[in-house]
Amino acid sequence: DNIQTELGDSFVGIIPVLMKAFKVLLVLMAFFLSSLFLYGLSYVAIMPGSVSVQKLYFDYSGIASHPVSNQIFPETHFRKTLPHILDNAPWAVADFFSKHSQWEAYNDDTIPAPRTSNRVLKPGGMYQVEVILDLPQSDINIMSGVFSVLVEILSVDGTMLASSVRSTRIPHETGWVSTIRKGVLLAPLLVGAAEETRTVKVPSFRYLVENEEMPLRYATVTLLSQENKPIEVMTGSILIGEELSSIQLLMKEWFFTCCAAGTAFIFCTHGITYLGFMAFLE
Amino acid sequence: DNIQTELGDSFVGIIPVLMKAFKVLLVLMAFFLSSLFLYGLSYVAIMPGSVSVQKLYFDYSGIASHPVSNQIFPETHFRKTLPHILDNAPWAVADFFSKHSQWEAYNDDTIPAPRTSNRVLKPGGMYQVEVILDLPQSDINIMSGVFSVLVEILSVDGTMLASSVRSTRIPHETGWVSTIRKGVLLAPLLVGAAEETRTVKVPSFRYLVENEEMPLRYATVTLLSQENKPIEVMTGSILIGEELSSIQLLMKEWFFTCCAAGTAFIFCTHGITYLGFMAFLE
Amino acid sequence: DNIQTELGDSFVGIIPVLMKAFKVLLVLMAFFLSSLFLYGLSYVAIMPGSVSVQKLYFDYSGIASHPVSNQIFPETHFRKTLPHILDNAPWAVADFFSKHSQWEAYNDDTIPAPRTSNRVLKPGGMYQVEVILDLPQSDINIMSGVFSVLVEILSVDGTMLASSVRSTRIPHETGWVSTIRKGVLLAPLLVGAAEETRTVKVPSFRYLVENEEMPLRYATVTLLSQENKPIEVMTGSILIGEELSSIQLLMKEWFFTCCAAGTAFIFCTHGITYLGFMAFLE
Repeated sequence: DNIQTELGDSFVGIIPVLMKAFKVLLVLMAFFLSSLFLYGLSYVAIMPGSVSVQKLYFDYSGIASHPVSNQIFPETHFRKTLPHILDNAPWAVADFFSKHSQWEAYNDDTIPAPRTSNRVLKPGGMYQVEVILDLPQSDINIMSGVFSVLVEILSVDGTMLASSVRSTRIPHETGWVSTIRKGVLLAPLLVGAAEETRTVKVPSFRYLVENEEMPLRYATVTLLSQENKPIEVMTGSILIGEELSSIQLLMKEWFFTCCAAGTAFIFCTHGITYLGFMAFLE
Repeated sequence: DNIQTELGDSFVGIIPVLMKAFKVLLVLMAFFLSSLFLYGLSYVAIMPGSVSVQKLYFDYSGIASHPVSNQIFPETHFRKTLPHILDNAPWAVADFFSKHSQWEAYNDDTIPAPRTSNRVLKPGGMYQVEVILDLPQSDINIMSGVFSVLVEILSVDGTMLASSVRSTRIPHETGWVSTIRKGVLLAPLLVGAAEETRTVKVPSFRYLVENEEMPLRYATVTLLSQENKPIEVMTGSILIGEELSSIQLLMKEWFFTCCAAGTAFIFCTHGITYLGFMAFLE
Repeated sequence: DNIQTELGDSFVGIIPVLMKAFKVLLVLMAFFLSSLFLYGLSYVAIMPGSVSVQKLYFDYSGIASHPVSNQIFPETHFRKTLPHILDNAPWAVADFFSKHSQWEAYNDDTIPAPRTSNRVLKPGGMYQVEVILDLPQSDINIMSGVFSVLVEILSVDGTMLASSVRSTRIPHETGWVSTIRKGVLLAPLLVGAAEETRTVKVPSFRYLVENEEMPLRYATVTLLSQENKPIEVMTGSILIGEELSSIQLLMKEWFFTCCAAGTAFIFCTHGITYLGFMAFLE
């Protein structure tokens, strides 16, 4: 049998060799894809799910005043008179207890029944809060540069629990790289499956502890741009998740490195098992 | 058997020669990679690990005033009235005792338990402090040129221990070199595994001695640009490591030279051992 | 056996001749490299080592005022009111007695133990001081043209011992020469082993005599550009070395000429010895 294939190869020429190489390539590809899939599965299994996700709808109107600016502002770290600044900035509010988000009801019957009336987080538990913003790749956003995201966490009765200011910008991308990206995504862009936006993740809080007496209920997100350069964000979301353990943190921070290493590991073990199995069969 | 292969070589022509050359190349490549890996291992083993690393989140909002500017500024070296300058500059603060970084808690229950309540460094030990900044390759950063990084080290009770001003800039890169770099990294750039940023390391302190009575706790990092040209830095990190010995310093300062020399040395010893072993077998 | 190969040569044609030429070339190359290496060794042996090297970290912030400008400026050579100029110029200071460089300690326990408390140079000895600057090849540096490097030498108690103003500029390089240079260095540039900088050596002092009573301790380096055109220098170093004897001076000033001549000399003596040895063997 062995002799026959060798003779066959030497007779038929290059086509069968290519066919064989193609088959080997197909098998390797299948192995690779299954390894990648397995790594993806284990990643999802290891990572904690998010406790609560709320959509953010930013208000640029200036009609409704910022919910926090009307309160007495705590005099801890923020010395300047914030309300003045906040009134002109686009803002959004999320209510983690309720289904209705950022629309005003003038009649209680208009409001849906709340998801919960108690709390969404475990008291004493540690959480992280992340704001995800969808930034259109418009000239205004590209030219605005760095802007700040102020997130304020409020309790059931409206007392402020914590606040965070983090800065971000739309990821810088050279023109031709951007063009290639759009070219690759042309079909989904034309169909409407993709949009010319970039997503930015703002890690607003880490190790935020849920208070026993004052459960977390509201979060307001305010966009503060420098020198009144506007920022264009229509939607986004705010996400509360359990604080990560060190291995989870590693897998998240070094996502692509871990993914490559994990996939390679699974691929190799796969291959060794397969070869051992083939040898066993023969 | 030996005679047969030699005859075979002289008969079959160029393909087997290429195959043999390819095999030799593969062996050499394997030797080279294992040498590089061994050098990498020994480098990691020789270098001291960092004692503490903290993420920096720069605040561009101008809402929260700079934590140090509100204190009475020591009248040692800095003659000019700093608070005025600092209030408009982006800043970040790191707390080496705590898990929560640069978010304000208005309620003590919201703050996570500290990592330590005592000290992170050995009293009397010598340390180096390094600030690592991720600079997007935006036009603003490229045109801003040199900017200064002011790092202030504070103790538990907020008394300032040391301050350092170091200047840096985004590494200059000619357009076509930049284009080649982006072309090489195109796939990771499109996927999102790489970003168009350059990393800058600022060696802020060398031979900083940990005080017996006043342990190091906070570090503030302020970006001071010339003539109000803004600098765009979203994240970075501050790193405290043990002071390097002279051999460690040499290996770090001349990283690539030492790497090349070390790898070559291991490669040669490898090769000699291998050849000796082969000769012994025959 | 010898006869056979000679017959083979005359038969087979051009390949063996090329092989022989290649062997001769290899031997010559080995001779040349060993000559160059020997010259390098003798150069290092002849040249005096540097007595002290200190890193310079330039301060562009304008926060910390220039250390010398606040002192009463000696009315010797500098007629103009310098402090006014110095306050806006980037400056760096080196302390040859201490390990800590250009960071301010507000507490004596934070400062590392000094290297020496006495002096680094021999009293009455003659020294040269050289400033080495790393200039990024940025447009700003290329267009700034000539700038001045003011070096001030101060004693233990801060009294000024000597000052020197030397002018320099980034070496002029035509665009296409620069492009070829970057093309040759492309791989190290992309990896990060090389940077687009040019190094400039400023010979600030020659035959500087160490004072018996007032030992040299500090050196400040100030960059004075014309018409407020900025210069971009992040790091550099200042080097004190023993004054050179005339032969050392010749070897340094005519470095490449001496290198070529010395290497050629060693190469020839090598070759004569080798040929003599071969003749002796036959």
